[in-house]
Amino acid sequence: MATHTVSELAALAGARLEGDPARRVDGTASLADARPTHVTFCVDPKYAEALARTQAAAVVVPQSLAVSRGDLALLRCDDPNRAFTKICALFAKERPKPAAGVHSRAVVAPTARLGVDVAIGECAVVGQGAVLGARVVLHPGAVVGPDCEVGDDTELHPHVVLYSGVRVGARCLLHAGAVIGADGFGFEPPRALGEPWTKIPQSGTVIVEDDVEIGANATIDRARFGTTRIGRGAKLDNLIHVAHNCEIGAGSMLAAQVGIAGSTRIGRSAMIGGQTGIGGHLTLPDGVRIGAQSGVIGPIPGGVELFGTPARPKREVFKHYALVERLPKLVERLEARIAELERRLERVAHERSSSNQEHGA
Amino acid sequence: MATHTVSELAALAGARLEGDPARRVDGTASLADARPTHVTFCVDPKYAEALARTQAAAVVVPQSLAVSRGDLALLRCDDPNRAFTKICALFAKERPKPAAGVHSRAVVAPTARLGVDVAIGECAVVGQGAVLGARVVLHPGAVVGPDCEVGDDTELHPHVVLYSGVRVGARCLLHAGAVIGADGFGFEPPRALGEPWTKIPQSGTVIVEDDVEIGANATIDRARFGTTRIGRGAKLDNLIHVAHNCEIGAGSMLAAQVGIAGSTRIGRSAMIGGQTGIGGHLTLPDGVRIGAQSGVIGPIPGGVELFGTPARPKREVFKHYALVERLPKLVERLEARIAELERRLERVAHERSSSNQEHGA
Amino acid sequence: MATHTVSELAALAGARLEGDPARRVDGTASLADARPTHVTFCVDPKYAEALARTQAAAVVVPQSLAVSRGDLALLRCDDPNRAFTKICALFAKERPKPAAGVHSRAVVAPTARLGVDVAIGECAVVGQGAVLGARVVLHPGAVVGPDCEVGDDTELHPHVVLYSGVRVGARCLLHAGAVIGADGFGFEPPRALGEPWTKIPQSGTVIVEDDVEIGANATIDRARFGTTRIGRGAKLDNLIHVAHNCEIGAGSMLAAQVGIAGSTRIGRSAMIGGQTGIGGHLTLPDGVRIGAQSGVIGPIPGGVELFGTPARPKREVFKHYALVERLPKLVERLEARIAELERRLERVAHERSSSNQEHGA
Repeated sequence: MATHTVSELAALAGARLEGDPARRVDGTASLADARPTHVTFCVDPKYAEALARTQAAAVVVPQSLAVSRGDLALLRCDDPNRAFTKICALFAKERPKPAAGVHSRAVVAPTARLGVDVAIGECAVVGQGAVLGARVVLHPGAVVGPDCEVGDDTELHPHVVLYSGVRVGARCLLHAGAVIGADGFGFEPPRALGEPWTKIPQSGTVIVEDDVEIGANATIDRARFGTTRIGRGAKLDNLIHVAHNCEIGAGSMLAAQVGIAGSTRIGRSAMIGGQTGIGGHLTLPDGVRIGAQSGVIGPIPGGVELFGTPARPKREVFKHYALVERLPKLVERLEARIAELERRLERVAHERSSSNQEHGA
Repeated sequence: MATHTVSELAALAGARLEGDPARRVDGTASLADARPTHVTFCVDPKYAEALARTQAAAVVVPQSLAVSRGDLALLRCDDPNRAFTKICALFAKERPKPAAGVHSRAVVAPTARLGVDVAIGECAVVGQGAVLGARVVLHPGAVVGPDCEVGDDTELHPHVVLYSGVRVGARCLLHAGAVIGADGFGFEPPRALGEPWTKIPQSGTVIVEDDVEIGANATIDRARFGTTRIGRGAKLDNLIHVAHNCEIGAGSMLAAQVGIAGSTRIGRSAMIGGQTGIGGHLTLPDGVRIGAQSGVIGPIPGGVELFGTPARPKREVFKHYALVERLPKLVERLEARIAELERRLERVAHERSSSNQEHGA
Repeated sequence: MATHTVSELAALAGARLEGDPARRVDGTASLADARPTHVTFCVDPKYAEALARTQAAAVVVPQSLAVSRGDLALLRCDDPNRAFTKICALFAKERPKPAAGVHSRAVVAPTARLGVDVAIGECAVVGQGAVLGARVVLHPGAVVGPDCEVGDDTELHPHVVLYSGVRVGARCLLHAGAVIGADGFGFEPPRALGEPWTKIPQSGTVIVEDDVEIGANATIDRARFGTTRIGRGAKLDNLIHVAHNCEIGAGSMLAAQVGIAGSTRIGRSAMIGGQTGIGGHLTLPDGVRIGAQSGVIGPIPGGVELFGTPARPKREVFKHYALVERLPKLVERLEARIAELERRLERVAHERSSSNQEHGA
């Protein structure tokens, strides 16, 4: 197992080292799980107790975090998350992959073209006319349909399915069970109650550009015609649904279980929280940020973070929540003031009428 | 590649033709993607700019749409969507399918019975006693469990799983990764904290009737006993969950990521928006329409469109949204009126007391 | 087919029998589907009509349910659900499974170790160094990655995927398409707009403890480092997403389509309703109960049932719903009282000014 001194790690991470520079570590772990040969990290003071008890040799921390333990090597960084990611990458063991070549139990169509050093695992299937780039990896059971193209260095985990004609770029990572290119959900409505829906042919395709990651069991439907497109460098989490003819902008980030209805375009560098639903035929601006579980049902303004159903600027939504929260007391107070007014007015009217009786008649 | 004249298309679509009837087209595309040999369509005036720039030869449009370009052949229709669907079907290339017969790498149990011209792809598996109708297509990796029945002309995409004993009708289309007949989620609660849940045997089955389409990675659980039933002609989108003992009425349409809890019955021709959740043991009337992301937690009235959590008539929900939206101003205004009343009453009381002092004593 | 007398069933279920003890039944069914040789059950008086019409021989009922039919054998129980579950288990046919041994079309790596009587179905794949306990069942297409461990008597349905290094305990049941151990969704944000996200290595693993059931197409991601853990006896329904580094407490019950963001810990015996979303880095107490479709975005108190987004005590939420429901009328009433006050005060002020004119000048 590779080991490194903490001073080597400090150099790698651009960190200021406090403590013994010669101490050796051989892996990464969380504060709680770390053993005496591990490096760990702590960003948030709320983990102070775990920090006080960790058995780690070294800890990546922000410049300002107060640490009372003198036995720990501290790697002080401006950006501890990023620094720790570099250190993790140093120790990360290569995950096992199918061996280069075509496994004897894989099935590759004779007209498929395979790049150098492809690795095709057990029971993977490559259809007629499909083209795999260099070093493409198909894990067991992955299915690349006829006429698909898969770019260099892309990895398809077990049971990924590319329907026919789908194109996936280079350096993509598709997790197990992801389905790319199933039919969009399109039907002409019945002309009369009880008559059947008429399927609208879904003749288009899906293009997944370079450097995209797609989560396990996510589904991205092919276009009615033209292309459903996942832009370069976009990251999609597990169980996401992208409907036909959508376009997801480059560098966008969609958390798990998001659903996007047909023909919606999401700009570049969007960030969309988990379980959010986005209606069809909408255009969302570059850099839009939408909180988890939101429901976007109309056009939305740029430059703000949205939240709720229907999604509105987050600040407003939380103001409304607070208002609704206060509502019972607020109504009670208004009612009390009105009741008090009624009483006082009654009194004034009564006094006035007595006074009139006094003064008049 | 097949080509057709625009006058042929007009005849097919029942359209009134404006422009050169002899112009030939060889495919369909969107306004933006169309090339000079394509036919496209435009229904909504909001796409006027794309229409002004399209390179298409011909455009399917509504009777009334104003079009300023004389170079385009126009196919004017009463129902452009339906017309264009017919034209798309004309040009739709047959999607590649496994060849008829049983692939040498498929595994069919000796007691399974196969209809004429079945096509069973690589690594597909057909269990003991299963019965496949005529022309059934199993894409690579599809699994038909023991004792299943699959009707004529039904197509199972890669990695579809039918658990044992499930029945799927004729002309169904099941997309990749759909799982039909997994155990319903049923457990007897622990008698005391810390004791285990007791699994309730899920002895029933699933029946998917004719002409049903089920989306990628959708899951439909088998019944505790009896049958979970998907009615004839129902259309279910990707990642839908249907729990044990549910019944989905004929011709119903469920959008992506809908979840339906156990023993709920949904009437015929229901339309349910994406990500909606429906509680257990409910009965929803025929023709019910429920907006996206709603949550149905109690019995609901017929004849209206529902929305929100808990789901209520959509009109009311939007009235409530509007009210809550106005609430801060509304409360402010009420408070202002009350404060004004308080001031005026104070003044009246004060004047009265001065006046009494004037008149009295 | 095995048959039993209703008196045998009464003994098994601890029921008090009314009716002919010698009557024989050979299976279970719902009230509506039962035939004359079936035993069924009825707990809720709302099914009285179905009970009046059932063809069943015998019915499991609560002690107190009034039943007007003399021809039915009644099995009166304190806990009819639990009693009926025992009876169902008696009649439940063993679901077909792959035969013991390794199917000739399965692929088991030479360095994998297999326990006694494992049953490995068609096209299942077991990777290098994987260890399967005794009587483990792999249905067709299940993939056990390199270096995984699977405990005794655990069953993996078709196309379940265990990524490398994942550990699954004994007596677990994983339904078709479940994916355990895909990469957690972790990226360092771009330093500037347009730059790429940097993948954070996901070096940890997943441990699924004993007696866990995981639903079809559910996804449980591996930890960034350390372990994503599903506690002993937890039950997870279909299409659930559990992100990296989460811990689900023993005996917890998560309904379909729940999503849990990274590093959240859920206590023991939690009950979480369908489609609920839970934010990251939260700790939920033992025994927490959260209603369907809720959104948990902050720390939550113990000992209460939560509901809504953001999730709050259910009682409060429904109070708020009721308040918002009443709001239009409530505002109308407040406005009417204020208007009345304004009118009366106007009158008083007017009368006063006339009176002053009378008395004064």
